[in-house]
Amino acid sequence: MNDALERPELTDRLAALLGPKGLTTDAHDLAPWLTDWRGRYHGAAMAMVAPANTQELAEIVCLASETGTPIVPQGGNSGMVGGATPDSGGSALLLSTRRMNAIRAIDPAARTVVAEAGVVLQTLHEAVAAQGLRFPLTLGGKGSATVGGLVSTNAGGTQVLRHGTMRALVEGLEAVLPDGSIYNGLATLKKDNRGYDIRHLLVGAEGTLGIVTAATLKLVPALIDRAVVWAGVRSPLAARELLLMLEARAGREMEGFEIVPQRCLANVLHHIPGTRAPLASAHPWHVLIEFARDNAAAPPPQELAEALMAEAFERDLVQDAAISSSESQAEAFWKLRDSISEAERAEGPAMQHDISVPVADMARFIIEAGAEVENRFPGTEVAAFGHMGDGNVHFHVAAPRGSDRATWPEHPGKEISGFVHDLVVAAGGSISAEHGIGQMKRDELGRLSDPARLMALKAIKQAFDPKGIMNPGKLVPL
Amino acid sequence: MNDALERPELTDRLAALLGPKGLTTDAHDLAPWLTDWRGRYHGAAMAMVAPANTQELAEIVCLASETGTPIVPQGGNSGMVGGATPDSGGSALLLSTRRMNAIRAIDPAARTVVAEAGVVLQTLHEAVAAQGLRFPLTLGGKGSATVGGLVSTNAGGTQVLRHGTMRALVEGLEAVLPDGSIYNGLATLKKDNRGYDIRHLLVGAEGTLGIVTAATLKLVPALIDRAVVWAGVRSPLAARELLLMLEARAGREMEGFEIVPQRCLANVLHHIPGTRAPLASAHPWHVLIEFARDNAAAPPPQELAEALMAEAFERDLVQDAAISSSESQAEAFWKLRDSISEAERAEGPAMQHDISVPVADMARFIIEAGAEVENRFPGTEVAAFGHMGDGNVHFHVAAPRGSDRATWPEHPGKEISGFVHDLVVAAGGSISAEHGIGQMKRDELGRLSDPARLMALKAIKQAFDPKGIMNPGKLVPL
Repeated sequence: MNDALERPELTDRLAALLGPKGLTTDAHDLAPWLTDWRGRYHGAAMAMVAPANTQELAEIVCLASETGTPIVPQGGNSGMVGGATPDSGGSALLLSTRRMNAIRAIDPAARTVVAEAGVVLQTLHEAVAAQGLRFPLTLGGKGSATVGGLVSTNAGGTQVLRHGTMRALVEGLEAVLPDGSIYNGLATLKKDNRGYDIRHLLVGAEGTLGIVTAATLKLVPALIDRAVVWAGVRSPLAARELLLMLEARAGREMEGFEIVPQRCLANVLHHIPGTRAPLASAHPWHVLIEFARDNAAAPPPQELAEALMAEAFERDLVQDAAISSSESQAEAFWKLRDSISEAERAEGPAMQHDISVPVADMARFIIEAGAEVENRFPGTEVAAFGHMGDGNVHFHVAAPRGSDRATWPEHPGKEISGFVHDLVVAAGGSISAEHGIGQMKRDELGRLSDPARLMALKAIKQAFDPKGIMNPGKLVPL
Repeated sequence: MNDALERPELTDRLAALLGPKGLTTDAHDLAPWLTDWRGRYHGAAMAMVAPANTQELAEIVCLASETGTPIVPQGGNSGMVGGATPDSGGSALLLSTRRMNAIRAIDPAARTVVAEAGVVLQTLHEAVAAQGLRFPLTLGGKGSATVGGLVSTNAGGTQVLRHGTMRALVEGLEAVLPDGSIYNGLATLKKDNRGYDIRHLLVGAEGTLGIVTAATLKLVPALIDRAVVWAGVRSPLAARELLLMLEARAGREMEGFEIVPQRCLANVLHHIPGTRAPLASAHPWHVLIEFARDNAAAPPPQELAEALMAEAFERDLVQDAAISSSESQAEAFWKLRDSISEAERAEGPAMQHDISVPVADMARFIIEAGAEVENRFPGTEVAAFGHMGDGNVHFHVAAPRGSDRATWPEHPGKEISGFVHDLVVAAGGSISAEHGIGQMKRDELGRLSDPARLMALKAIKQAFDPKGIMNPGKLVPL
């Protein structure tokens, strides 16, 4: 274990290794990186290290291993579960990947890009767009989220319906393991059966088994055009029927299918400047659908949307619909969807749950679990919104009006979350669909996992990181 | 460790648990299962157990764990690397999944099937075909290969180009871990970030981390029609150009792209009754291409094949081509491809290497590595054939005529294999693309893996199976 005597010596060695650009010990400079962006978790660190390349990073890990110093890797610090915030002990090194931000190669023929861990998602989008290509994963935090963080959290977002989560887009990985060795798996082989799949083990491991330093990512052709539909529907069940119809008819031209309850739309229109309702009439539920094509032989999305919405209207699956007629209108529809969390924060306290159940069961779950929660905790209001096409919604429970922002999340907030998680487990679902476990859900994972899964998680962690230096306290239940 | 005193007691307990159908100790009955189908590996076992269900299997594992008894799981006993053959010590239990052969559920809406480990691939094909669906993985051993073996070896086959290997088709898993606990991951969640991905760890683990007992598998719509092309080409480089053209033009309608050198075709025509050459003219290389559709809106495969072959001919990428005009002709073309190994065995001894390199590099690799091997080992002839569209060929080195069948594979056979593997590693490739490691390639994996991968493999094995009872001696280098 690191102790007070060793600390100055370790810092000296890090300074010699990294130079002034690579080491920060000033408390003021460190502060912004020691709180998660939602302001829920606050930690301390002896220093922040920012290696310039994989070799330097490996040397830091060797030093940490030698001295038993905990390392907390951090990308854009925009995670949702406190996974990149150290504990309050102050003995950890915060390891920022920000300087490892090279795009090493773009291969247009193989449709791959090799990007270092610190590359910001938006930068990646722009770099590949310049070659007529697209990295088909996006999310609200694209201006700060990094490749390393996206890989380590197996990020989702709004294009999973067609393209899958990060796991489906990672074709190769480079990482530094907890003993300082470099795992070099960037070469993309379509078929490789040399034993246990290390790549899939590191994707979604939240930095607890090693630090992702670079990834080979799958690209797709750039979009030619898109059309975004905002439609009013009667219920989640109607939305589900609509989804089935569109999956059968639009197939790969449908890129996203999101559900939005009226409550969320009303909050957005109330709190977010410059927003307006897409439909003249009122509806209890809404769906946002994106049609897009990357192939000139496919039907134009605008025409496809018009034909399919006419059919859905005839089949009484939608009550009203607006189809974007310009890129700015498409963006305006997405802004309504993307502003839901911000508007909710302005409205008052709420408990958020990033959950999934089998896709076929989601509509019923939203209705039944929503009623159970509101019944059990009078005055609360449930708003379930998001990636219905993936069986994943953000199941938020808003406090009764007038609840205290400071105390309500603790009590009865935690009890509410436990209740929601129990319902999810009973439905065969997951208490973390896309945000990960971090420190926020670690204890709930321990409470709700079956023994075989817990055994496996702990055994893998112990095997890779016997000294427990890699992002300790995250993901693996104690 | 199991010893002579414990053995009768263990057998008694197994007999009580499993009944007469579930336990075989008779040497004559055991014999067929103690040699791999290629006849390369011979082992011994104290008994063969065949549990009727997951619970019985878990109890067997508990008993084995308690007594330190090695377990060797076996499906169809049609693996290529000795992965299901016990060692010669005789202390192992051979565990056959043959009685766990229920198809638990087919869900046409979700397009999934839940099949137990012992279900034979061909049976699975037929069961889902009866519902208008298709399980899009097939291979030569489909009459014996089982779901458990296909999952545990991450099987490939001839439809990987469009549908991926087994890994891409496994949506959920049930398994018994080495401590006897049951991992229940059959529910299919499109998004689930509850820590390390246990499913991807078990796929391809060759039974060394636990025993797969059932899987939820992805289905696709049944094929409407298909057309198979046999074309003569000048070289692997021309085949590569053709592949690129077809990927751009045929997209998802192309299901397979296989390369066959003249030597292999000649062997087949010579040794396999009822085969005939598809083309009148002679060509140094051949490709077999399958076009297929599962969607009536897609172009008919026959028309697509004719148009694309006309274009390829004009661009001088193919010299001649035959397009199947009936299902029996399509099957006749595939039979030529599928008989290559059988014809090769009739011809004489050869060293087989199931290798992959990045898809873009395969054509050059075939040419250059082939020349290097023939140059280094005069008299040998290299025949590289198979899944060129996946960057995976079977790189076979035939002995000089008159070589001794019994001794040549040992010397210089092993030296040749080492030489081939070195070339593969230098090209950034894999020494096991689809067959796995088993006992055959374990030492080569140890010789050729980088330290980080080896560390990870050993650590995972040790973590899951600290007693070393799960298929010992397979996959993980010592």
